[in-house]
Amino acid sequence: MKILAAQINPIIGDLDDNTKLIIDFIEKGKALQIDLVLFPELALTGYPPQDLLLLPHFIQIVSEKLAEIVALTKGITVIIGFPRYSSNQTGKKLYNSAAIIQNQQILGYVDKILLPTYDVFDEKRYFESGGQVQSWNICNKKISVVICEDLWQHSGFIGTSIYQRDPVLELKEIGPELVLNLSASPYSYKKLSKRLDVCLKTAQTLNCPVLLCNQVGANDSLIFDGYSSYTTPTGLKKCAKGFQEEALIIDTEKDETNLEPPKEKLDDLYQALTLGVRDYFKKQGFKKACLGLSGGIDSALVACIAKDALGSENVLALFMPSRFSSSESARDAKLLAKHLHIEYKVLPIEHAFESLLETLKPEFKDQAIDVTEENLQARIRGILLMAFSNKFGHIVLSTGNKSELAMGYATLYGDMCGGLSVISDLTKTQVFELSRWINRDEEIIPWHTIERAPSAELKENQKDSDSLPDYELLDKILVASIEYHQSPQEIARALNQTEEEINQLILRIYQNEYKRRQAAPGLRVSEKAFTTGRYYPIVQRWVSNTKPKK
Amino acid sequence: MKILAAQINPIIGDLDDNTKLIIDFIEKGKALQIDLVLFPELALTGYPPQDLLLLPHFIQIVSEKLAEIVALTKGITVIIGFPRYSSNQTGKKLYNSAAIIQNQQILGYVDKILLPTYDVFDEKRYFESGGQVQSWNICNKKISVVICEDLWQHSGFIGTSIYQRDPVLELKEIGPELVLNLSASPYSYKKLSKRLDVCLKTAQTLNCPVLLCNQVGANDSLIFDGYSSYTTPTGLKKCAKGFQEEALIIDTEKDETNLEPPKEKLDDLYQALTLGVRDYFKKQGFKKACLGLSGGIDSALVACIAKDALGSENVLALFMPSRFSSSESARDAKLLAKHLHIEYKVLPIEHAFESLLETLKPEFKDQAIDVTEENLQARIRGILLMAFSNKFGHIVLSTGNKSELAMGYATLYGDMCGGLSVISDLTKTQVFELSRWINRDEEIIPWHTIERAPSAELKENQKDSDSLPDYELLDKILVASIEYHQSPQEIARALNQTEEEINQLILRIYQNEYKRRQAAPGLRVSEKAFTTGRYYPIVQRWVSNTKPKK
Repeated sequence: MKILAAQINPIIGDLDDNTKLIIDFIEKGKALQIDLVLFPELALTGYPPQDLLLLPHFIQIVSEKLAEIVALTKGITVIIGFPRYSSNQTGKKLYNSAAIIQNQQILGYVDKILLPTYDVFDEKRYFESGGQVQSWNICNKKISVVICEDLWQHSGFIGTSIYQRDPVLELKEIGPELVLNLSASPYSYKKLSKRLDVCLKTAQTLNCPVLLCNQVGANDSLIFDGYSSYTTPTGLKKCAKGFQEEALIIDTEKDETNLEPPKEKLDDLYQALTLGVRDYFKKQGFKKACLGLSGGIDSALVACIAKDALGSENVLALFMPSRFSSSESARDAKLLAKHLHIEYKVLPIEHAFESLLETLKPEFKDQAIDVTEENLQARIRGILLMAFSNKFGHIVLSTGNKSELAMGYATLYGDMCGGLSVISDLTKTQVFELSRWINRDEEIIPWHTIERAPSAELKENQKDSDSLPDYELLDKILVASIEYHQSPQEIARALNQTEEEINQLILRIYQNEYKRRQAAPGLRVSEKAFTTGRYYPIVQRWVSNTKPKK
Repeated sequence: MKILAAQINPIIGDLDDNTKLIIDFIEKGKALQIDLVLFPELALTGYPPQDLLLLPHFIQIVSEKLAEIVALTKGITVIIGFPRYSSNQTGKKLYNSAAIIQNQQILGYVDKILLPTYDVFDEKRYFESGGQVQSWNICNKKISVVICEDLWQHSGFIGTSIYQRDPVLELKEIGPELVLNLSASPYSYKKLSKRLDVCLKTAQTLNCPVLLCNQVGANDSLIFDGYSSYTTPTGLKKCAKGFQEEALIIDTEKDETNLEPPKEKLDDLYQALTLGVRDYFKKQGFKKACLGLSGGIDSALVACIAKDALGSENVLALFMPSRFSSSESARDAKLLAKHLHIEYKVLPIEHAFESLLETLKPEFKDQAIDVTEENLQARIRGILLMAFSNKFGHIVLSTGNKSELAMGYATLYGDMCGGLSVISDLTKTQVFELSRWINRDEEIIPWHTIERAPSAELKENQKDSDSLPDYELLDKILVASIEYHQSPQEIARALNQTEEEINQLILRIYQNEYKRRQAAPGLRVSEKAFTTGRYYPIVQRWVSNTKPKK
C-alpha cells in the first residue's frame, strides 16, 4: 500500500487556497498511483483557527469546501482534518475531526478524543471530545486514524495523565495493522525527539507502524516544523524534512532500514525563526522589514534572520545614534549591514531628543535625570521606525530577547515597537549561542558585537550588568521559574543563591507583566513563551513589592 | 437559620490579605450570631487566578491558609471557595472547590462540575470536573452547595446546552431545602437580570430558596458587580448592593416580601467603569493617573471616570495642541478640567513635531503627506504622557473607544498608549449615552464637546465621518458582527445595507487585529470585548484584502 503524507503549509482561514493546496496534493497522489493521501489536523482551516471556529458561516463554507474535495477523490482514499458540527443535543457544537474519504464517498469521521487545553492549546474552548476508537478497512488493511494529542497521553509526555482516557490502549483492543495520525504539533526547541518517541512508543504498544503527518509553517506565534514520520516498532523508517512542505511517500510493503532520528540543533532553531518571519510576512502579503540596528547582539541576530527570511533587498536597517552611542556601535552596525548586503541608514535622534526635553522642561524643571530620559530616546527610535513603516510599508521587527522581557529591561512603545518580535523567546544565552553559530564559517555578525559587554547605551557608560545579574545565571533562574514553575526556594537551593536574590528577580518578572501584555507578538520556540500560552494577571499580589517573600 | 453572604473583594494571589478579609467576615458572622457564612467562588485566591494555579507552591500556601481559617470556625459553619488538589491518578490536578467547614472541622468538599471554557473563561485549562451532587445536613436543614456555572446550564443562558450534565436536574433527585451558590460572575451590561433569572429558575425547579454569593471588585479587565441575592420560588427576596463589599444577611425562617429586581442602567455601567479604574490602581498601590484631553468626548468621559475613581487631586490632564487643534478644543478641555477640579497642563507638540519631521526629511524627501504625519503627532503625545508617567509615577489612561479600536481608527504607540484602557469596550454610541447621563443634572462635560462632530484633529478640517460611516450605523454593525457572530450577508439584510459596504467594514475589523493585540488592557463591560475573551489570528485570510467577499 502506498501512502502520501501531505506535509502542507495552510494559511489560517484561507479556505479557497487551502482547498486548492489539498487538491494539488491529491492530484500528485493520483499521478504517483498512491492509494491514500493523508493530511494534517484541521488542514482545511489551518491550525489554530481560533475564534473563526465560532462563526457559523465559516463552518458552513468549510463543509462546502470539503464537498468540493470529496468530488475529486475518484479512485483514491483521502484523510483530511477539518472542524465539523456534532449532531448531539448537548456538549460543544464542534468536533476536531478527520474525514475518511474514498472514491468520492465519505466513509465516516474520526473525532479527536483528547483535546489539549494547556499551554498554547485551548481546544476545549471549541470542541467536544470524540467517542470510540475504531478501524477502517482500506486497501484490505485494518487502519486506525487518530488525531495528534490522542497518541501523546500514552507516552507520558503531557505530564502526569491529565486525561481520563488513553486512546492508544483503547486501540490495542482493536489491533490495527497501521495507525495514521493527523497532527498540528508546534515546534519548540526540544519537541522533535519527544514527538518521534511518541510514535515509537505507540508503534511498539500496538505492534504496527505509525505514520504521522504534521502541519508545516508559521501562524502568528506558532511555528510548525513538519518532520512527518513513519515509524515501525523497530524504529524510525522515514522522515520528511523540517520547515518546508513535502510529499512524504511510504510503501507499507517495503522493508526499510532504520533511520537515524534528526537531532535538534541550532540549525533547526534558526530555521524555525526564519520560517516564522517569512510566513508572518508572506501570508499577510508584506515584503519589507525595517529594524533598528544598535550595534548590539540582539538587533544583529534579528537582522541576520530577517535577511535570510526575506532577502537582503527587503531589509532596511536604521542606526539611530544618540549622544550616548559609541563609535564602536556605529562601526559594528555598519559592518553587519555590509556583510548582510542590507540597506543601511543613519538617523541621529539628538535633535528630536533635545526638542522633547525642551517641551518637557517647563514641567520637569529641576527634577533629576532618571529612566524617563532613557525611555525618551528609545521611544524616539520607535517613532522613527514606525514612520518608515507608515510611509513605505515596512513591518517593523522588534529585537528584544526573552531575558530582557522577563526583567522589563525594555522600553514599552520604544524598542518594544514592532509588528513581530523575532527573538522574544530566546534567552540572552541562546542569543549568544545562535550568533556564534551564524559565524561558524565566517564573520557575519562582527565578532566585536558578540564579545563586547552588552549595553543599552541610553546613558553614560551604561552596561546591562549594572542592573541585571550575569546573563548565564539569570537565564538559568528564568528557565527554572518560567518553564518549570519552580519556587524561589527550590531555585535558590539548586543554583546556590540566596532566596532574597531569587525573590528580587522573580518580583521583576511579575512586575513587568504589564509591559509584556502590550508586546508585539513573538515567535515561540521554547516550551513556555511569554507571547502565548502563559497567562498571568497584571494586578496580583502573589509576588509583589509589598510581599516579595513567596 | 441565619446566613451571611460575604460579598468580598479579594486581590488576586494575595493569600495573606484575602485570608484576613475572610476571617474578618467570619468574626462579623460570629458577632451577629450567624449560623453560616458563605463566600464567593475561589474567594481565597481571588477570581481569576489564571496561571498562578499552575504553581505548586501557590497551591501549597492556599492549603495552609485554609487550615488557618478552619481553626477559627468554632461554633459556626463556613463555606469557602478555593482550588484543591484532586487525589485521582488521571485528569487535571485541581478542582475548583468549596470547603464545607463546621466548628473547626472540614466536613467535605464540593467540586465545580461545569467548567466554563468560552469567552473570558478557561477553567478546563486548570480544573477537572467534580463528581456527584450531594447535600449536607447543616442546622437541621438539607443544604446543597453548588459553584457558579453549575446553575447556569439549567436556565438555558449559556447557549444551547454546551454541557453534557445539568447539575440542577441532578439536585432535584436529592431535594435540598436550600441551595447555596458560590459565584465569581463578571459584570456585563446585560448580565444582572440573567443572573437573577438563573436563581429564580433554579429555585422554582427545586422548590427551595437559592442564595448566591458573588465576588465584587475588578481584576484586570474583569469587573465583578456583586449583587449577591436570595431568591425563593416566588421571587427575589434580598439583594446586596452592586460594586461594593457587603455582608448580606438572610434569615431563612423569615417571610420576606418580594423585591423589585434592580434594573440595569447607565448608573451601573458608570459604577462598573469607576470600580474598574479604582481597583486597577488601588490593588497595585498606584494613586495618580494622567491622560491626554483632546477636547473630544472620549477623553472627556475618561476624565470624569478617573476623577470619580481616584479623586480630583489624583488626576492630571494634559492638553497637547498641534497646528491642527482648534481653539474650541482648547476651550472645551480647559472647561472640563475646571468642572472636574483636576490638574490641567498645556504642552504644545509643535516644536517636537517639527524636529521629527526635520529628522525624517532627508529620507522622506518629496513623499506626499499622509497618515504618517498624523501618527507622528499622536505618538509625540504618547511619548509625553509616558514621560510624565515615568517621572512622576502616574499610570497613563488610554481613552479610545470600542468603535475606534474595531476600525483601527487609533494610533498604535500613540493615543493607544496607557496602562489601562478605560472605555475600550464602549461603542461610540454608548460613549454619547454615558456622557449625556453624566450631564443629567448639570454640565460637567461641556455640551459643546458632546454636540460637535467628532474629529481626531490630526490634519486640516478632519472629521471622523471622512473615513468612517455614521457611528449609529457602524455600532449596530459592530455589535452584530463581534457580539453575535452574524455573517456580512445577515447584517446587510438586517440593516438594509449592501453586502459590499458591510464587507469593507468587517475587513477593517480583521485587518486591525494587530493593533488591538498591543492595546492596553481594557475594562470589559459588554458580552464580547476585544480586551479578553476574543481570540482571532493576526495572520489569516478568512477576511482579507485579497479575498474580502466572505
